Formats: sequence, C-alpha cells, structure tokens
Amino acid sequence: MTINGTTSNGKDRSQLIPFSSRLREGRALAQDVWSIFNAANLPADCINLGQGYMNFGPPEWIKSAAEEALNTVATNHYSHPKGRPRLREAIKAHYEPEFGRTLNADTEILVTSGANEGQYSVFVAFLEHRDEVIMFEPFFDQYLPSVTFNGGVPVYVPLHPPTAAGKQSSHEWSIDFDELRRAVTPRTKMIILNTPHNPVGKVFTRHELEQIAAIAEEHNLLVMSDEVYDSLVFDNEEHVRIATLPGMWDRTVTVGSAGKMFAATGWRVGWLIGPPSIIQPTLAATTRIVFCSNSPLQEASAAGLEQANKRGFLKKQLDEYAERRRILTAGFDQLGVKYTNPQGTYFVLLDISNLQWPDDYPFPESVLGRGRDFKACWFIAMEIGVSSIPVSEFYCEEHASIGEAYARFAFCKDFDTLKHAVERLQKLKQYLV
Amino acid sequence: MTINGTTSNGKDRSQLIPFSSRLREGRALAQDVWSIFNAANLPADCINLGQGYMNFGPPEWIKSAAEEALNTVATNHYSHPKGRPRLREAIKAHYEPEFGRTLNADTEILVTSGANEGQYSVFVAFLEHRDEVIMFEPFFDQYLPSVTFNGGVPVYVPLHPPTAAGKQSSHEWSIDFDELRRAVTPRTKMIILNTPHNPVGKVFTRHELEQIAAIAEEHNLLVMSDEVYDSLVFDNEEHVRIATLPGMWDRTVTVGSAGKMFAATGWRVGWLIGPPSIIQPTLAATTRIVFCSNSPLQEASAAGLEQANKRGFLKKQLDEYAERRRILTAGFDQLGVKYTNPQGTYFVLLDISNLQWPDDYPFPESVLGRGRDFKACWFIAMEIGVSSIPVSEFYCEEHASIGEAYARFAFCKDFDTLKHAVERLQKLKQYLV
Ligand SMILES: Cc1ncc(COP(=O)(O)O)c(C=O)c1O
Ligand SMILES: Cc1ncc(COP(=O)(O)O)c(C=O)c1O
Repeated sequence: MTINGTTSNGKDRSQLIPFSSRLREGRALAQDVWSIFNAANLPADCINLGQGYMNFGPPEWIKSAAEEALNTVATNHYSHPKGRPRLREAIKAHYEPEFGRTLNADTEILVTSGANEGQYSVFVAFLEHRDEVIMFEPFFDQYLPSVTFNGGVPVYVPLHPPTAAGKQSSHEWSIDFDELRRAVTPRTKMIILNTPHNPVGKVFTRHELEQIAAIAEEHNLLVMSDEVYDSLVFDNEEHVRIATLPGMWDRTVTVGSAGKMFAATGWRVGWLIGPPSIIQPTLAATTRIVFCSNSPLQEASAAGLEQANKRGFLKKQLDEYAERRRILTAGFDQLGVKYTNPQGTYFVLLDISNLQWPDDYPFPESVLGRGRDFKACWFIAMEIGVSSIPVSEFYCEEHASIGEAYARFAFCKDFDTLKHAVERLQKLKQYLV
Repeated sequence: MTINGTTSNGKDRSQLIPFSSRLREGRALAQDVWSIFNAANLPADCINLGQGYMNFGPPEWIKSAAEEALNTVATNHYSHPKGRPRLREAIKAHYEPEFGRTLNADTEILVTSGANEGQYSVFVAFLEHRDEVIMFEPFFDQYLPSVTFNGGVPVYVPLHPPTAAGKQSSHEWSIDFDELRRAVTPRTKMIILNTPHNPVGKVFTRHELEQIAAIAEEHNLLVMSDEVYDSLVFDNEEHVRIATLPGMWDRTVTVGSAGKMFAATGWRVGWLIGPPSIIQPTLAATTRIVFCSNSPLQEASAAGLEQANKRGFLKKQLDEYAERRRILTAGFDQLGVKYTNPQGTYFVLLDISNLQWPDDYPFPESVLGRGRDFKACWFIAMEIGVSSIPVSEFYCEEHASIGEAYARFAFCKDFDTLKHAVERLQKLKQYLV
C-alpha cells in the first residue's frame, strides 16, 4: 500500500506495539526479588527485614523545614536542573572537609532524584554502545539494567567471601586483583564501586582503593563511587573516598543520598559530586530525564545537611544503628550461625549453608528453580516470620552460586522490631544441621 | 603495554573521559533558551512571563495533605514503582469519567516523577535505534533530546499559523494532513501529540484527532498524547482525548501532571494512563530510572485528585486562568498587536513581526546569530521589563522561520503581576511599525 509516495511499513494493525529490545536485556522484565518477597506475598505479621527502608521517619526538625518549604511559593515550583542553590551550598559545606578540597557548587555538584536517578544519568551521559562497565558482585541490583538500557555491557568481578567459620567481618570479603585486571578490556569505560557496600557491608580499605585507582588511571576509566551509606560506617573505621586519592578527582563521580542519610528514602533526593567534565554532561542527561528534582524536599534536605553535624544528628544516628547491628548480630551469635558483621550500611549477610528445611516443603513457583537462598528466605519468612532477601539475585548467573549461601537482613528498623525478630529467629535452631 | 594478557586500550591518561555521543545530538549541550532568558541575566525588576511556572502555590488543603504525609512514617519511604496505591486509585476515579471506561489501577496507571520523566520512560521503553518519532512544531523542547538520547530520530511536522490580521484563535493553527502523511515512513514508531498545546494553546478538534488516529492505526503507531494542560481548557471548548477514539486505547498513552493541575510544578508528580501493553514496559523503564517517585507529594497529589471536583477547585482555577488570559490579551488588544488567543494552556503567542528596535541596539552574544524572536524577547525584557520566550527554539532549524515571528508570554501569574505587565507592555507602541 502506498500513501503519498511512501510505502506503508506493512505492520499488522492488530499487533501490539513492540517494546524496545533494550528491555530484553539486564533482567528488565524478569520478576525481581522485590516482588517475590513483597510483604503482600508473605504472612501478614511477618517482620520485614527484607527491604532496605526504615520503619522510622526523618527527624522532626527536618520535617519542619519541608513544611516551611511547602508554605513558600517558590519552593513549590521548578528548581534549577542542577538543584536548588541552598541544597548545593549545603552539600558543598558538608562535603568539603570530607573531600579535603574546595567544591564549586555550580559546576561540581548536581542534585538528582535519588542516588538512583543520578547513577542512571551518569550512564546516559557516558556510555557508548557496547562500552563495558565493571561491577563488583554482589551488586546493587539497579546497576545491571541501568547499564544495559544505555547500551553498556556489564562485566562482573566477584568479591570473594571469607572461608573461616563463625562471625566474620565484612572486611574479609576480598577482591582478587588479578581477576579485576583480567576483566579490563579495550572497551572498558567505567568501574562501579560501592563503599560502604550493599549487601556485604564492606568498607573498602585505602590499600584496596589504591589498587582500583591504579587500574582506573592506567586504562583511563571513569569511576562511579556509590557512597550512599557514607554516614553509616561503624567502629571508627576509616571511610576512604576514592575521589580523594592522588589523580582520582578528575575521573571519579561520588554518589550520595538524602534518603539514606536522613531516614527519608521516599523523598527521592540524591547528589553527585565530581569534576565539571563529569558533572556537566550528567546535568545535560538529568535535565532531560526528570528536568529537576522535587523542590520542597530539596529544601528540607538542605536543612538536614546544614544542621546534621551541629545538632549531633549524624553521630547520634550512627550510634543507634550500631546498637541495631548489635541486637541483630547478638541474635545470630546466640543461634550460633555464621554471618558477616558489617563495617558499614545496615545489612547483615547470614550464611544459610547449614539451614535445612523439610524435603517436601511446599515452595511456590516463584522460588522453585531459583537458588537455594530463595528457598531459604522463603522458608524463614513463612516459618519464622522474618523476611530477608536472597543474595544470588545480586550476582550474574555464572557467579550466582557464591550468593546462594547468603540471606540479607536489613537492620534499619527500630529496636523493638529487631528484638522481636531476634526472638523469632531463635526458632531457626531446629533447622540447623 | 600488556597486563595479564589483556592489552591496555592505550588511552591517553591525561585525556578527560569522553562523554557519550548521544549528547552530541538533539541540542543536548547547546545553551538553551531557558538559560539565556533566565531571570539572572535580565533586569532585577523584570516581570517574568517567560517560564511556565506559577507565582502562586498549591491550595492550602493540598499542602495539609503533604504535611500529614510527612508526619506518617511510611509516606516518607519508598513507594511502589507503579506509584502509591492511594494516588493510583485517585487517578482512576478522576479519569474514568473522562475516558469513559473502567481503568485498572494496577496495570493501566503509572505514576512518574513529573510528566517529563514519564515521557522519557516511554521513549526508553519503546524506541529502537533509528525509530522515527513524529512531533508537531512548535514542540515542547524536552521531546527532542529525550527522543535522540534513546536512539530515536525526530521527524517534524509544523502546525501552520493563521495568516489573517488581528486577534486569532489558537484553533486557526492547522495541520496539513498531506504533510503529516508524507512524514510517515516504514521506520515511524510514534507520534507525539500535545493537546492543549504548549506554546500555541491549541486544543485539537475531534476531526483533527480522527485524522491523526487513522494514520496511527494504518501504520501501527504508538501515540503519546501529552495532555498536561487538560484542566486548562477555556470557553467550554471540548477537550477530546485521542485515547477515547475508536480503536485508539490500545495504542495511546496519555500523559498528565499534578504540577500543572495543582500549581505545584516543583512537586515532580505526573502520570501515564494506557493499556497494560504500554504501561508494563514503561514501568520496567521508570523503575530503573528513578525507582519510584517521591512519596509525600504523591500522597498530597492523591488528596488533590480526590477532592478537586468536590471542592470545585478545578472549576474555580479555570475561571481564574480565564481572567488571567483576559487581562493579558486585553493588553495586547489595546496595543493593537496580532496574537494567538489560546483555547487552552496558559500561553499567549505575540506576533512580533511588526516590532522594530533601533538598528544599533546592543544585543548580547547569546542572542546574536539566533532568530529575530530572540532579539525581540531580549529587547522587550530589557526595555519594557517583561520577559517572554522566543518561539523559534521550539522548531527544527528548517522550520525555525515560522517560530521567529512569535514570543511566548505565560499568564500563570497572579492578577496584579499581569496587570502590571500589561501596563509596561503599552510602551511597546513606540516600537511598532
Ligand atoms: C548501594 C545503593 N546505591 C543506591 C541506592 C539508591 O539510593 P536512593 O534511594 O537515594 O535512590 C541504594 C538504595 O538501596 C543502594 O543500596
Ligand atoms: C507540553 C508539556 N509537557 C510536559 C511538561 C512537563 O510537565 P511536568 O512538570 O509534570 O514534568 C510541560 C511543562 O512545561 C509541558 O509544557
């Protein structure tokens, strides 16, 4: 059929509009672990230590700042795509001592709609079709599809779990640097680093970061350093920012999140810090993706950063998280199971290798055919009443067996909830072999 | 140099990390019209009728709902990527009568971070490399880079301005349907429609939409119908939704915005309505891009939709906008200039063909070498003290001369501001030829 000299494309009218082939990659359409272990599928009174959000809210004084913003006309309207000046100034003031350098609030700081959208924008801004992106496993599950959506090819390098028995430090999860070097090819564009690390809780050492930096420098790689848990580093451990290592500022973008810092994951405010050569193209990307981030909660986040240290908020919050970690890990100690004690973040990896459920246990379709950890998490949720997340989801297929040994428990919950969970978890004893 | 059997890619260490080639297209890195006509570059007391945001805020009762959400733990945390159930239910209830059909809040409604991010997600979900996307000129400037970032190729079809003198209705801007048909090729995937239209103010007629629908059906095209100004249709004009035409539901995604509806452009809450075959892939995209939209302002938007009609809010708001339009257009009538009276939206296009500035007027670099409309808008801002936006920015290069005849004035401002602007604009008389 010809219309005005153009031949019709002959598509079948009744056929649905086909979606983009990019959705066929990166598990974008697969049933993800969050839907399987969604509260709706679990017993009504199940204690949720699965999802990584708090069962407490942001502090009153930050909420007051949000209310003030709601009651001011301008802060209900579009912000500059870079982020509101007040928030960029607050980020500058908070992070300058951390980075040991002056930050330009106009060219080196970018506010994003959560860390998530910031990271997506970096991929949009920097990935060329078939560029390779190295990520350490286990990885925050959003990285994979965000990379493939933008034409990137993920290359996986596992963190190797400790082999000793008993309580272990997240510190013992290690990188094989020969393996990392072998992963670099002429197409490698970027390394994604995450410290403190979700779900391992590892805080990378200066020595580890120096070796990563050397590889990045040698191969001219961009480093995306996801540091959204930077305010949750325990035991006076040193949190080294790779951007502060010699020569690394120019090739590193550091990612932060108001959601993690102020117990407000639903506010969707995050930020990127880096040189203008990284921030400017990323600004061009984020401007098209969201135009700007929501204004009232940017103002509130600014108030948060302005006052967090003055009020002793971050110190107090850290102490509370340390106590949460203590409650949960004491429960695991009492149970006598192997787990990873995190140096940072609010996650504990429980080693579920010794857990044994009845052979005929009725698992649903959604976990059958998945790793052993999917079954373990399901079993614990149904029988013990505490939900957690299977860790093989955070590995590529080839390396999934490493993750199969672990269930991730989030301790971003109030003390009572954690104590209650710990009580219930003692019932696991009868299933340990 | 060889590292563990992998040859180094030989990139120059000192070279900056190159950004993606996708940023070289779609004007993504060009200085955009918003920065040139930013308040910071204009006289301090310049009245801003440039940018399309209000100088008033959302109503008190909606802000109270936001405060309530801030004071509830769960509504400070992550929402389901689909959007909060309460908001999806509110969208369902509000739009069912408008669409004349039952809407499934789980599979046919998707909350996004502003209309903008919703539209971006549709491009991510549906565009294949080199798919063509038809857009009518003038077009909302975000469409162009959002399409090219996702591999799409924009194809432009101009709306033709009326030729008669005096006050004109936006209705008189017309589509040449032969031109539209000629724009369709075997690679055409999508048509972007915008009704009520920014910046023309045109509300497409049923007859026009039927002809567009026929072309979409014949070529199996996806239609993205941007209806963010659907609550601003004047004079009891009928706002027809193309999704409601026979056969069109299955291929149409309709875009809405809480920002435009509730005078809260900075809240970044928008929505998409369409069949599951469009919503599901788009959900997969938005989940990776932002994970979810901010929770407190989703709750507030839900309250807005739940009560908007009951409280008579939308009717009252429409009457106020009609009065704003009257104030501004009366000013233009008094001046005796040609302009487009909008059937919808809050924009008036002023025909600046008859405006004459001194030959030696000192224009800055940023507007020299751009269209005549850039100079006109600069001149009006500097000499008259009212800012507006040059319309050639909303055209491709080939068709820019059509837009050069117009400046866009936004009337989403309070009565006094508009009256003051109108007073100042009378001074234009001496420059009219
Ligand atoms: C490692 C990591 N990066 C990024 C994010 C996303 O942070 P945001 O909520 O600010 O988008 C998360 C959230 O869980 C995370 O664990
Ligand atoms: C036609 C059109 N579509 C979409 C948008 C974006 O709306 P939102 O602010 O909800 O992202 C705008 C904003 O100006 C617009 O004019």
